[in-house]
Amino acid sequence: MNVMGWRMPVSKRRSRHVLGVALAMLLIPASLLAEDSGGQVVVRQLRGESLSHSLIGTDPVRKLAIYLPAGYESAVQRYPVIYYLPSPLAKFDEDFYRGSVRGVLDRAVAAGEIGKVIFVAVDMATPLGCSWYLNSPVTGNWEDYMVRELVPYVDANFRTLASRDSRGIAGDFMGGYGAIRFGMTHPEVFGTVYALHPVGTGSGIYTMYSRPDWKLLAHIQSVDELKASPFGMIFTSIFQASVPDVNRPPLYIDLQAHPVGDTVEIDSAVTERLRDNFLLETMIGKYANNLKSLRGLRFDWARNDGNYDHVYSNQAFTHELNEFGISHEAEEYNGVWGTGNWGVDGRVYTEVLPFFARHLVIDARSAPAP
Amino acid sequence: MNVMGWRMPVSKRRSRHVLGVALAMLLIPASLLAEDSGGQVVVRQLRGESLSHSLIGTDPVRKLAIYLPAGYESAVQRYPVIYYLPSPLAKFDEDFYRGSVRGVLDRAVAAGEIGKVIFVAVDMATPLGCSWYLNSPVTGNWEDYMVRELVPYVDANFRTLASRDSRGIAGDFMGGYGAIRFGMTHPEVFGTVYALHPVGTGSGIYTMYSRPDWKLLAHIQSVDELKASPFGMIFTSIFQASVPDVNRPPLYIDLQAHPVGDTVEIDSAVTERLRDNFLLETMIGKYANNLKSLRGLRFDWARNDGNYDHVYSNQAFTHELNEFGISHEAEEYNGVWGTGNWGVDGRVYTEVLPFFARHLVIDARSAPAP
Amino acid sequence: MNVMGWRMPVSKRRSRHVLGVALAMLLIPASLLAEDSGGQVVVRQLRGESLSHSLIGTDPVRKLAIYLPAGYESAVQRYPVIYYLPSPLAKFDEDFYRGSVRGVLDRAVAAGEIGKVIFVAVDMATPLGCSWYLNSPVTGNWEDYMVRELVPYVDANFRTLASRDSRGIAGDFMGGYGAIRFGMTHPEVFGTVYALHPVGTGSGIYTMYSRPDWKLLAHIQSVDELKASPFGMIFTSIFQASVPDVNRPPLYIDLQAHPVGDTVEIDSAVTERLRDNFLLETMIGKYANNLKSLRGLRFDWARNDGNYDHVYSNQAFTHELNEFGISHEAEEYNGVWGTGNWGVDGRVYTEVLPFFARHLVIDARSAPAP
Amino acid sequence: MNVMGWRMPVSKRRSRHVLGVALAMLLIPASLLAEDSGGQVVVRQLRGESLSHSLIGTDPVRKLAIYLPAGYESAVQRYPVIYYLPSPLAKFDEDFYRGSVRGVLDRAVAAGEIGKVIFVAVDMATPLGCSWYLNSPVTGNWEDYMVRELVPYVDANFRTLASRDSRGIAGDFMGGYGAIRFGMTHPEVFGTVYALHPVGTGSGIYTMYSRPDWKLLAHIQSVDELKASPFGMIFTSIFQASVPDVNRPPLYIDLQAHPVGDTVEIDSAVTERLRDNFLLETMIGKYANNLKSLRGLRFDWARNDGNYDHVYSNQAFTHELNEFGISHEAEEYNGVWGTGNWGVDGRVYTEVLPFFARHLVIDARSAPAP
Repeated sequence: MNVMGWRMPVSKRRSRHVLGVALAMLLIPASLLAEDSGGQVVVRQLRGESLSHSLIGTDPVRKLAIYLPAGYESAVQRYPVIYYLPSPLAKFDEDFYRGSVRGVLDRAVAAGEIGKVIFVAVDMATPLGCSWYLNSPVTGNWEDYMVRELVPYVDANFRTLASRDSRGIAGDFMGGYGAIRFGMTHPEVFGTVYALHPVGTGSGIYTMYSRPDWKLLAHIQSVDELKASPFGMIFTSIFQASVPDVNRPPLYIDLQAHPVGDTVEIDSAVTERLRDNFLLETMIGKYANNLKSLRGLRFDWARNDGNYDHVYSNQAFTHELNEFGISHEAEEYNGVWGTGNWGVDGRVYTEVLPFFARHLVIDARSAPAP
Repeated sequence: MNVMGWRMPVSKRRSRHVLGVALAMLLIPASLLAEDSGGQVVVRQLRGESLSHSLIGTDPVRKLAIYLPAGYESAVQRYPVIYYLPSPLAKFDEDFYRGSVRGVLDRAVAAGEIGKVIFVAVDMATPLGCSWYLNSPVTGNWEDYMVRELVPYVDANFRTLASRDSRGIAGDFMGGYGAIRFGMTHPEVFGTVYALHPVGTGSGIYTMYSRPDWKLLAHIQSVDELKASPFGMIFTSIFQASVPDVNRPPLYIDLQAHPVGDTVEIDSAVTERLRDNFLLETMIGKYANNLKSLRGLRFDWARNDGNYDHVYSNQAFTHELNEFGISHEAEEYNGVWGTGNWGVDGRVYTEVLPFFARHLVIDARSAPAP
Repeated sequence: MNVMGWRMPVSKRRSRHVLGVALAMLLIPASLLAEDSGGQVVVRQLRGESLSHSLIGTDPVRKLAIYLPAGYESAVQRYPVIYYLPSPLAKFDEDFYRGSVRGVLDRAVAAGEIGKVIFVAVDMATPLGCSWYLNSPVTGNWEDYMVRELVPYVDANFRTLASRDSRGIAGDFMGGYGAIRFGMTHPEVFGTVYALHPVGTGSGIYTMYSRPDWKLLAHIQSVDELKASPFGMIFTSIFQASVPDVNRPPLYIDLQAHPVGDTVEIDSAVTERLRDNFLLETMIGKYANNLKSLRGLRFDWARNDGNYDHVYSNQAFTHELNEFGISHEAEEYNGVWGTGNWGVDGRVYTEVLPFFARHLVIDARSAPAP
Repeated sequence: MNVMGWRMPVSKRRSRHVLGVALAMLLIPASLLAEDSGGQVVVRQLRGESLSHSLIGTDPVRKLAIYLPAGYESAVQRYPVIYYLPSPLAKFDEDFYRGSVRGVLDRAVAAGEIGKVIFVAVDMATPLGCSWYLNSPVTGNWEDYMVRELVPYVDANFRTLASRDSRGIAGDFMGGYGAIRFGMTHPEVFGTVYALHPVGTGSGIYTMYSRPDWKLLAHIQSVDELKASPFGMIFTSIFQASVPDVNRPPLYIDLQAHPVGDTVEIDSAVTERLRDNFLLETMIGKYANNLKSLRGLRFDWARNDGNYDHVYSNQAFTHELNEFGISHEAEEYNGVWGTGNWGVDGRVYTEVLPFFARHLVIDARSAPAP
């Protein structure tokens, strides 16, 4: 039997659309037809003054991948912008943005899932893993870099709608952490937030201190020694961001735990500093009104993440947001993290872009008639 | 500032569409243009032979509300069908289907969220609450009514695509239970299933037997006495469906629990029968291959349901489906059950219809060219 | 068949003991034999200067019930002391302490579950429910009353071992909250803590603000109006303790939420103040070192509490204690709160007293030879 | 300061006891004084006919360690018996029973935590890990071995109280699974059950099929190949017990999952068989009345087990027991599995032995006067 899919957003919708366009082809200007030819990805590098004083060799020159929608060059229109923080665990890959990301965005625009949009991916990895998107005397001032350097650069060099209402931020995994964090700390910059499976939202089902090798950290002589420890590098990146200590080479961190025989002793003060600076859940009270000022806030997570800490912490995080009356969407779905976020019918296509479509704003005056 | 929403599925998408159509107007047949004028809801009644022998005064004449898409009357096309089981707690209301439901479906079809579809709502309430969609000598043979009478009636009287591939079933709350149950027991009839916040999927955070008033049930003389007991009627409807006993008027049920002093004694055999016949979780093993044969299976639930039993049981249900390797989507969302499922940007519009759009099939041969 | 219980702590252990005693009867002093004759409960009243300035009519004269162990009057020994905070929901009842409590303590001492101990129960209920054991300009300075008045009074009037090492505190439900709170804030006074099914340890599965009737609170004219609202009195007692406002009669509280149409708007600042002052979980960071200095810390809760908030919050609380490396025991048990804590083989007998027996200290020099 | 512990069950209680004994020394028979000299552990081997036909080289000669209480040899008394199933992950170690176990039991008897008891540890490990305590054509008939051979052997060779009322069973980890399973299937043999941190009570937070390496299992040529797979041996032992297939060397199991590309396809029938035969939760309905007939049923588990599956499954298990109205105790405690169960103040001393003391029965007629 000759069956076919029923919705097929592109084929069915576009086919209807194409029908009209085909019939009308002689009557309408070429620029409108160009809509279906797809966008382009340009790669830039932006040196960050805010990043120039790190103690750990952070490269202050950061790579950007900027998706410009179909027809960008020939138009005068300004566009909303979605900033995107990829998981630092995935190597920043130009080809990915030139290929998969461009494909998904083109398809979403063509199908009407979202209007034309600029999409800016930025690499915020540090030598040990993640910047955690905050200012640290050890790793660099990443918060400043984003807000004072990167966003102004993009607004100055591309035809953006340069206001919070038209500027969103999304991210994946640690990047999801970053997206929420920027929504907390800079709602005047980013008006809409979507985090895909964020980590670091709260403490996990197991304690944070149960992960690192404290004997190693207590006596480490060289950063290279971290490589042998499964959680060594990523937790050190957390500590460099949250409990930095410029006087303690080579890691430049204060230690939350100290080995005592076969167990550890927890330093209460360092623990509190770590939690106050790092865990999004702990930061809610301080930034509640900022979060309430967002146009849209959403995150989701996969129920079957092999690290159940991530599930537990997101469940706790949505609870605490509700305690402060902060409107948000928070969906736990059946699945494993990361599987096909950027694939056909992946969550970027089915969830992230439609969410921004509902919450970002365009200025009707500067937009051409539809 | 003159800002406007950005996606606006109807206005943006339709306007592009209308643009094409407007330009092409002279060249295409009128029937295609009629697409935007909206569908109609017809109300019918269908007497069920399967329901004619109940012991509790079930009305065998059931009301249907049938949405026919725009242009139905003048076309020859056959359409997919979505059956819908409303929550029996909400009184079956013709006006609701003529108004809210028609509005949501018209808008979704116009915006391209789903193709044209027939939508059939059916009232399966019993005198005490819910039929639970199964055959019972006490309440009627509801499973038979659906499969042997209602579906054939609809296929005979409307231009449907009369196969499982093009037939879906959805429901809300108890109706969500029913949708999954029919997917389990009759995948040859319903190929795609969506349950909104289903109940009865498994046992709750509290025991089932902790809800009814067993002293009342042990000595009841008249069905009217149930009204004073908060959970009396709804649990009795469960028992009449799952542990019926035709020899025990006035309720015609076997009792799971017997009061002994201030506590109760649980009858293991009745408990096992109740669980085997009622809880969807317990039924998974028996119907696993049926569930695997579905084209699509999805359910969701609101995390903040005031009755946490519903959250707990759905969490357990998705776990058990995974244990059997049954593909499905299962989303827990931040919110309260029922709030605006049928509203603008409610879950029917944003989740249910797109899901059916992805999974229902139309026969390309019988469908007119797009 | 003539079967008998096997352990029977009293009969078997005492019988062995009695055997020895019986055989030795002529050889040992009478005072040792008096051991089995049981303790006594004296009731006192202690006026609290710390409570004399409340705005809500708190009675500054508080009732105490003091259990003195068998042989107290004829001995010169000093004894450890366990303070006990009953649930304010249970009316403070002298007869209870003279009967049930005395019986349990006598039996435990006789069976060797614990050595001889003084046990002091104190009534800290306020007109609206609970003092929550802290200093408030509205309800009175309860923390001061306990630490500066009550404990010194007991030490001055009874032969106590007057140090933290020999002083413990326990409580039930809200009283369990109080026991942990005093352990947090005054470990120099109370060295060992046991909380039975504490509440207020953290936020619940539902938000705190979802409980009160905010329309009522916004417009209330008289305290009496609270009685019609299910959670009205108890939540107002929380607010009077945690977010007092002496300028706002008749309740003297700041409002966390303000009704807006059918929903409410949450005041972030009041919410943060409420959480910082009330929730034990939020207080952990500030008092972590105090908690670590305790000789023993334990709490438990019943898994099947009809209010699942209490289960959820205790689960979260033990997690947070672990995050700070605070040693403690935390047991979730199968049961319903309060069933038989003070009964035969109730948790006071099987859990609370043995825990204090393991952690309280006696000064061997001042104790008579065994 | 010269402080000392307060309860010190041995020193305080024994000292009181010793006081009596010392004073009475001349008046009582020597056999009573021998009480404090401690028990003995004898090691035996029992060949199992039930184990002689396994396909995997199970050794039918099983080692037993039997603790006999102080004074056993010179007395005529009969004693209750506790059977103990150690975790097969811990190598059965005679020295352990001669040392640690004897020490704990001696101390508990001396302190009056429990009366004199015989304690029988038995090794039920198979070549791949665990027998799972059931009859399998592949691994041997372990259920039969226990019930038809081992218990009769012990009753025939030692002075036991040979009835269910005086016979208990306990176990640790997989042995805890076994203890509950024997309570389910043979309550006529074992009247009281305590399981320490049992596994296999239900499915985990992750699916069972996610653990094994199905590509390996599908093509395995030799049992030795399992060693490279982290969960290979232990899951194969589960399958050999639950879904045996005598016609499929070398593992003799049916496969629940079949690799298909990068994913697996789950066999519903094998899955259901596996669950019905293996998971205690799934077996509850069938054995509910057996479980209700137990004198005592208790299990506990550590909340911070590094494998959260064990926590989740035990939480679900106690829920299902409650659904059937099966009385039991089920405690989730703060800690990590296995830490010091057999240590001073370990759970065997503080929980397991007192529980048996409360539930096992001695026949007063055959017991000598205390």
